[in-house]
Amino acid sequence: MADVELVPGGSLKTATAEEGRALAIKLARLIIKTTQPDADERTRQRDIYSTDPAMMIAMGQTVAIEFATVAAANNYWL
Amino acid sequence: MADVELVPGGSLKTATAEEGRALAIKLARLIIKTTQPDADERTRQRDIYSTDPAMMIAMGQTVAIEFATVAAANNYWL
Amino acid sequence: MADVELVPGGSLKTATAEEGRALAIKLARLIIKTTQPDADERTRQRDIYSTDPAMMIAMGQTVAIEFATVAAANNYWL
Amino acid sequence: MADVELVPGGSLKTATAEEGRALAIKLARLIIKTTQPDADERTRQRDIYSTDPAMMIAMGQTVAIEFATVAAANNYWL
Amino acid sequence: MADVELVPGGSLKTATAEEGRALAIKLARLIIKTTQPDADERTRQRDIYSTDPAMMIAMGQTVAIEFATVAAANNYWL
Amino acid sequence: MADVELVPGGSLKTATAEEGRALAIKLARLIIKTTQPDADERTRQRDIYSTDPAMMIAMGQTVAIEFATVAAANNYWL
Repeated sequence: MADVELVPGGSLKTATAEEGRALAIKLARLIIKTTQPDADERTRQRDIYSTDPAMMIAMGQTVAIEFATVAAANNYWL
Repeated sequence: MADVELVPGGSLKTATAEEGRALAIKLARLIIKTTQPDADERTRQRDIYSTDPAMMIAMGQTVAIEFATVAAANNYWL
Repeated sequence: MADVELVPGGSLKTATAEEGRALAIKLARLIIKTTQPDADERTRQRDIYSTDPAMMIAMGQTVAIEFATVAAANNYWL
Repeated sequence: MADVELVPGGSLKTATAEEGRALAIKLARLIIKTTQPDADERTRQRDIYSTDPAMMIAMGQTVAIEFATVAAANNYWL
Repeated sequence: MADVELVPGGSLKTATAEEGRALAIKLARLIIKTTQPDADERTRQRDIYSTDPAMMIAMGQTVAIEFATVAAANNYWL
Repeated sequence: MADVELVPGGSLKTATAEEGRALAIKLARLIIKTTQPDADERTRQRDIYSTDPAMMIAMGQTVAIEFATVAAANNYWL
């Protein structure tokens, strides 16, 4: 496992739902980064999945799952 | 990551369950948009997945996961 | 997004668990309908996935996720 | 949608965790049944997925998701 | 459905998180066993999926979902 | 099932969200390890999935699901 910061800022708390969505995207990407530390290889893979609708849908599911946790941590910004 | 608004209106709160479903769909689409900012490429992908039943089912799963969070944020509109 | 009613009756509340399952199925189908408004195309896809066991299993997962939300909204009909 | 009973006994309550697992399996199967009412076709599909490890794993995921709801409905049989 | 015990010991309660993980694995395997009662066929499938990284990842997802329920049933062993 | 420690340290509690993410990754890997005890085979599979974007996305989903449980166990480190 590469030496990657997995939670930017070290907290699941965000000021807004908008920032919570951005955090969910980052959380998902940092898992990819720690598993595949080679930046060129990650760029190569991104070119593949960003043009593949099935992979894009699967990527969206991952972010949705991460966001569920971030949203609960923030009590849904109520 | 493109400069895309990820949560329309900045809140998970909606007046009704109907609006909550619509928000869940938008949340899912905005993740796609921020990952693939090219509108023509998104249209190309949409033509593919909207005619592919396996992808349509996967897309429905993503919306269902997003909706679980939106519904919890609204205490299920009770 | 087509002009489709996404939550029949506008509420996640149902009288029974049986009706809750039926609602979960409808919720999943209405997401498909709003994404693919062409009824003939939906029928074509249904003929494909209803004879494909992998797609049937995936469809079942979608309904299970929708039902989790419906059941929570109804406090599990206790 | 075929006229299928979707929740056997009409309730998510079971006496034991063992019965809760059995209910989760039944719930998953009844969604398949209502989507594909032809018993011969369901048998044909079962022969396919029961010999395909990827489909068996996916089937297991569906049951796990259904069980999460059944278990919550029963307060985990505590 | 084969006559298989679906919940070893009849309870989701375990003394430790370690035992909870082991239970989650067993729960997932027992669903496979009740769906495919033929031990030789299960061994054949296991040889396939244990050497297939995509199936191994999917298997891990199933266990993660089962574990979420087991962990909640044990109040996370706090 | 190989004799593998499934929960490092025996607890879902971590001091920080950062450590919680690392634990989620480890939990996912230990399920793989107990299912496929051969280290060379795991390395072979890792070389495959770490260069396959679809598998990387699926791996990320598994970690996201594990993390949801770890985060709940830690009350989101609030």
